[in-house]
Amino acid sequence: MAGQLPVTDARALPPDAALIAATAARLAPVVRRTPLLSAPALDRIAGRRVLVKAECLQHTGSFKFRGGFAAVSALAEADRARGVLAWSSGNHAQGVALAARMHGVAAVIVMPSDAPRAKIDATRALGADLILHDRATEPREEIGAKLIAERGLTLIRPFDDPQVIAGQASVGLELAAQAADEGVRDADVLVCCGGGGLTAGVALALETKAPGLRVRPVEPEGFDDTARSLAAGRRLENTARTGLCDAILTPAPGALTFPVLQRLCGPGLVLPDRDTLRAMAAAFAHLKLVLEPGGAVALAAALFQPRAVTGAAVIVIASGGNVDRAVFTRALEDGGD
Amino acid sequence: MAGQLPVTDARALPPDAALIAATAARLAPVVRRTPLLSAPALDRIAGRRVLVKAECLQHTGSFKFRGGFAAVSALAEADRARGVLAWSSGNHAQGVALAARMHGVAAVIVMPSDAPRAKIDATRALGADLILHDRATEPREEIGAKLIAERGLTLIRPFDDPQVIAGQASVGLELAAQAADEGVRDADVLVCCGGGGLTAGVALALETKAPGLRVRPVEPEGFDDTARSLAAGRRLENTARTGLCDAILTPAPGALTFPVLQRLCGPGLVLPDRDTLRAMAAAFAHLKLVLEPGGAVALAAALFQPRAVTGAAVIVIASGGNVDRAVFTRALEDGGD
Repeated sequence: MAGQLPVTDARALPPDAALIAATAARLAPVVRRTPLLSAPALDRIAGRRVLVKAECLQHTGSFKFRGGFAAVSALAEADRARGVLAWSSGNHAQGVALAARMHGVAAVIVMPSDAPRAKIDATRALGADLILHDRATEPREEIGAKLIAERGLTLIRPFDDPQVIAGQASVGLELAAQAADEGVRDADVLVCCGGGGLTAGVALALETKAPGLRVRPVEPEGFDDTARSLAAGRRLENTARTGLCDAILTPAPGALTFPVLQRLCGPGLVLPDRDTLRAMAAAFAHLKLVLEPGGAVALAAALFQPRAVTGAAVIVIASGGNVDRAVFTRALEDGGD
Repeated sequence: MAGQLPVTDARALPPDAALIAATAARLAPVVRRTPLLSAPALDRIAGRRVLVKAECLQHTGSFKFRGGFAAVSALAEADRARGVLAWSSGNHAQGVALAARMHGVAAVIVMPSDAPRAKIDATRALGADLILHDRATEPREEIGAKLIAERGLTLIRPFDDPQVIAGQASVGLELAAQAADEGVRDADVLVCCGGGGLTAGVALALETKAPGLRVRPVEPEGFDDTARSLAAGRRLENTARTGLCDAILTPAPGALTFPVLQRLCGPGLVLPDRDTLRAMAAAFAHLKLVLEPGGAVALAAALFQPRAVTGAAVIVIASGGNVDRAVFTRALEDGGD
C-alpha cells in the first residue's frame, strides 16, 4: 500500500518550511485562530507572566483538527473516494472525522472502548464509522490493516505524518505572531506531548518565525517517554498504557517527530497527575476554559514547576478540552486547593 | 455631588454613535476581541446555527471590564486622584477594580457578603478596597453615599452611565464585524440582561453597524423585570432579590437603558434556572467554556426556547464565567442530561 499512501508514509521526512507555509494557507480559512489568554492570578502562581494558547477552543475541542484537515485536504481524489482511517483515543478521531466530513470523505475511526464517553459520542456525532476495540486483546494496528486491505482506506496517522505535523505547525505560526504582539520574544513554550506531532510542528514553525521561543515537551508521570528519550538520545518506550491524561499516552515518541524534538526542543518536563488536576481547576477559575487532563499538563508545569522554566514569561499550549464530566468535577474537587 | 459626576449622572443621555466610536478606540488596545464560537452539537440542539460571543474570556471573566475601563479612562485627573467607588455583585466590581488599577486609581468596591466567593476573592486580588455588606440590612446606596461624601469618590454606576454603556457597546461593534464574516446579517441576538447596560450598548452599536441583527434581552424566571417592562411600556420591578443568576438580578431596568431597549429591542425571553444549568453543561461539553448562570441564560434561550427565536441563525452573548465550583459542579450533574 505504501505507494498509494505518500502523505502517510512513516519513511517520509518532516515538513519543511515550504510545506508548513502551504499547509497554513490551506488551513487559514477553516481553523480557528485561537486566542492567547492570560490572567493576573496565573502570573502570581507561576511567579512570571503566563500566556496560554487556548487550543481547546479549536473546532472539535483540540488542536487535532488542524492536522486532520491538513492530511485529508492533501489527499488525491482517488484516495478521497475510498475514504480514510484513523485510530485514536479520541481527539485525532474527532479532528479526522470533521475534516473528512468537510471534504465529503468517508471516515472509519478505531477507538479504544475505554476512551472518554465525551470523545466517543462526539466522534460518532461527526458522522464517522466508529469501531471500538479492547486495547488489551485487539491491537488497533491489526484492525486497521484489515480495513486498509479490504477497502483501500488511507490511514491518517496521528503524528508520524508530514501533513499532520505541518497542520499542527500552524499553532506555532499563530503563536509566533501572537507572542510578538505581546512583546514576548524569548520564552519557554510548554507543549503537552504524546507522540510529538504538536511539539514537533510547533518547534519547526518557531525555528524560523520566532527562534527565541524554545519548545519544551511536557508529559504526565509514568508516560515520560519523550523526556527520557531526549535525555538518552534514543527512542524509549513507556510501560504503562492507561492513565488520567488519555490524550497523550502514546507508547513512544514518533519515528518522524523524535529527530525534530532532538534537534529543536529543550529538556522535557514531567508532571504528577495531582498537579494536572490543579491546573484544570486553575484554568476553570482564572481563564474560564475547560481543559482535559492531557491538555492541562503544560499549564501544570508553568504553574507548579516554575524552577524548571526559564525567563520572564512562559507560553503554554492548552491543547484540548474533551473531558468527561466526572473527571472535570474531580479536578474541581481535588485540584481546587 | 452631581456637578462632580458628569459621566455617572443618571440624568445624562445614552451614548451616541460618536461616543461609542471614541470609546471603542480607547478600548481597542486593552480589551480582548473575544471569539465568536460555534459547535455542530449546539446547532443540532437549537435546530439552527448558533454563534456564541465568548465574553467569559474577557479580562476579569466578563464583559464588565469594557464598561469599567471606559468609565475610569474618561475621568478627569482630579477625579482619578480621589478614587472611584462601585457597587456590584461581583462582575462590575472586578471590571472597575482592574480598570482602576490600570490607571493607578484607588477603587472602593461595595459587594454583598453573599456574593460568590470566586468574585469576592478575584476583586480583592485586583487590589480593590472591598466593603462587604448585608443586602437586607445595609443598603449599598447608603454605604456608597457616605464614602462619596467623605472621600469625594466618583461613583461608577453598573449600567446607568453613558460611558459604561458605550464601553459595553464595543461588544456590539465586534459582533457586527464577526457576524458579517460568518455571513450572518439577519438574526436575533440574545443578550443576558440585568440592568440593561450590555443590552442597550449592543443594541446601539448594532443599530448603525448591523441593523439586521435584532437584540433580545434574556432573563431568569423571577427576575423578568425587563421582559415585563417592555411588554407594559414602563419600568417594572422584581420582587425577588436573590437567585441562581447573581450577575443579572437587578431590581429593575435602568433609567438610561430602558428607553434604548424600548426603542431597539425585541420581546424579552425568560428562562427557568433548570435550563440555565443545562446551558452551562452544554457550553462545557461543546464549547469548552466556563459560563456562570447569569452568563448562560442567553445560550439557554437559544438551545431550549427555539420557537421563541426567529431566523436561520441565532447569536448569543455569553456574558461571563465567574462561577463558584459548587454551582458549576451542580450544573454538570443536574444539567448534564
